[in-house]
Amino acid sequence: MKQQGGTDDAKRRAGESAADTVSDGAVVGLGTGSTAAYAIRELGRRVDSGLDIRGIPTSHGARRLAREVGIPLTTLAEATPDVAIDGADQVAGFELIKGGGAAHAREKLVDSAAERFLVVVDETKLAEPLDAAVPVEVLPDAVPVVERELAALGGTPELRAAERKDGPVVTDNGNLVVDCAFGAIADAEALAADLSALPGVVEHGLFVGLADEIHVGGDAVDVRR
Amino acid sequence: MKQQGGTDDAKRRAGESAADTVSDGAVVGLGTGSTAAYAIRELGRRVDSGLDIRGIPTSHGARRLAREVGIPLTTLAEATPDVAIDGADQVAGFELIKGGGAAHAREKLVDSAAERFLVVVDETKLAEPLDAAVPVEVLPDAVPVVERELAALGGTPELRAAERKDGPVVTDNGNLVVDCAFGAIADAEALAADLSALPGVVEHGLFVGLADEIHVGGDAVDVRR
Repeated sequence: MKQQGGTDDAKRRAGESAADTVSDGAVVGLGTGSTAAYAIRELGRRVDSGLDIRGIPTSHGARRLAREVGIPLTTLAEATPDVAIDGADQVAGFELIKGGGAAHAREKLVDSAAERFLVVVDETKLAEPLDAAVPVEVLPDAVPVVERELAALGGTPELRAAERKDGPVVTDNGNLVVDCAFGAIADAEALAADLSALPGVVEHGLFVGLADEIHVGGDAVDVRR
Repeated sequence: MKQQGGTDDAKRRAGESAADTVSDGAVVGLGTGSTAAYAIRELGRRVDSGLDIRGIPTSHGARRLAREVGIPLTTLAEATPDVAIDGADQVAGFELIKGGGAAHAREKLVDSAAERFLVVVDETKLAEPLDAAVPVEVLPDAVPVVERELAALGGTPELRAAERKDGPVVTDNGNLVVDCAFGAIADAEALAADLSALPGVVEHGLFVGLADEIHVGGDAVDVRR
């Protein structure tokens, strides 16, 4: 995910604030993106100091960083996360849009499986209501049909193009991503159900009813519960 | 999909009944399974006799058979099906369970995109209410979490094992299939929404609000509209 929006210091404060709540013995879902990366690095430092945890990464990127900083890893088949720490592209109340990094299918899987899901963002990610484009992961053959259905739901769909390969972005699951702008999203829960029901949609980036705490980084950290 | 349940004659009558409704110029979604195969063969004979149609297959199997019998093919990117003809594993009213052939993600995509969706079954597939296990296509990494969530919804999940390869069945999309028994399904629409919302679920085999006609083959064909 691109480094964008808030300052590195704000992201670092948010990530470290959430990482500091993790207790000995915990299984931790490890999020994707620049702010979650600060949480992973902080957890790595705490592991160096003797903290006993196991991580479950939400993406190739998170797995690689977790290995680099020395966090022992496990899987969803072997353990249920006690806590997950993950970023978001936009936050309104406790509703999120995620998927800028195209990892939202596995992120939602890990974040929703966790007992507690802590969101880490800098304050530039706050909005009211949500109005960013919603990333939708789609089976490759289904893209034309899903684009028609998204338009019928009032959205403006756009297949996400890759920058460092020809053609579209391909997700870690081998699917494509359609970013769909809906303008201001008045009822995120209803839209989430509509998107989930579309044939060909593997997962969408609306996270409703999942977040337990939002750690918002600025000059200090504002923790919303 | 295994040849099971009704007689070949009953399946043939149902498939041919639906195929005979297809008019010149139509784009036709081509279903998967033994009964839909009779419809594809009948369409092939009608193409030989001058019928001008294009087919959109719902699976590798349907594509192969359509080529064999000479039906010109197109794609969902180029055309919207006027009609889809597909089988079902169980039918109650106009609600279906599909996915015995593990093709239900693409079947639902094609069948739901069609203006009219004709279901072809023999009478052994009729039930009231639906009570067969529901096939659920799942991202490979998500299986343990989805199995826990399915159990929480009251189901008894079982990962589908392959018979002609080691390990589990892998779908045409590269995912796994969990067959989940729920006993008698009182509210298929509500269960469909619950299954669609589960993180890690790519598609499920409950088809609610999609079928326009049911062609039931027995000694004759009973067409329900």
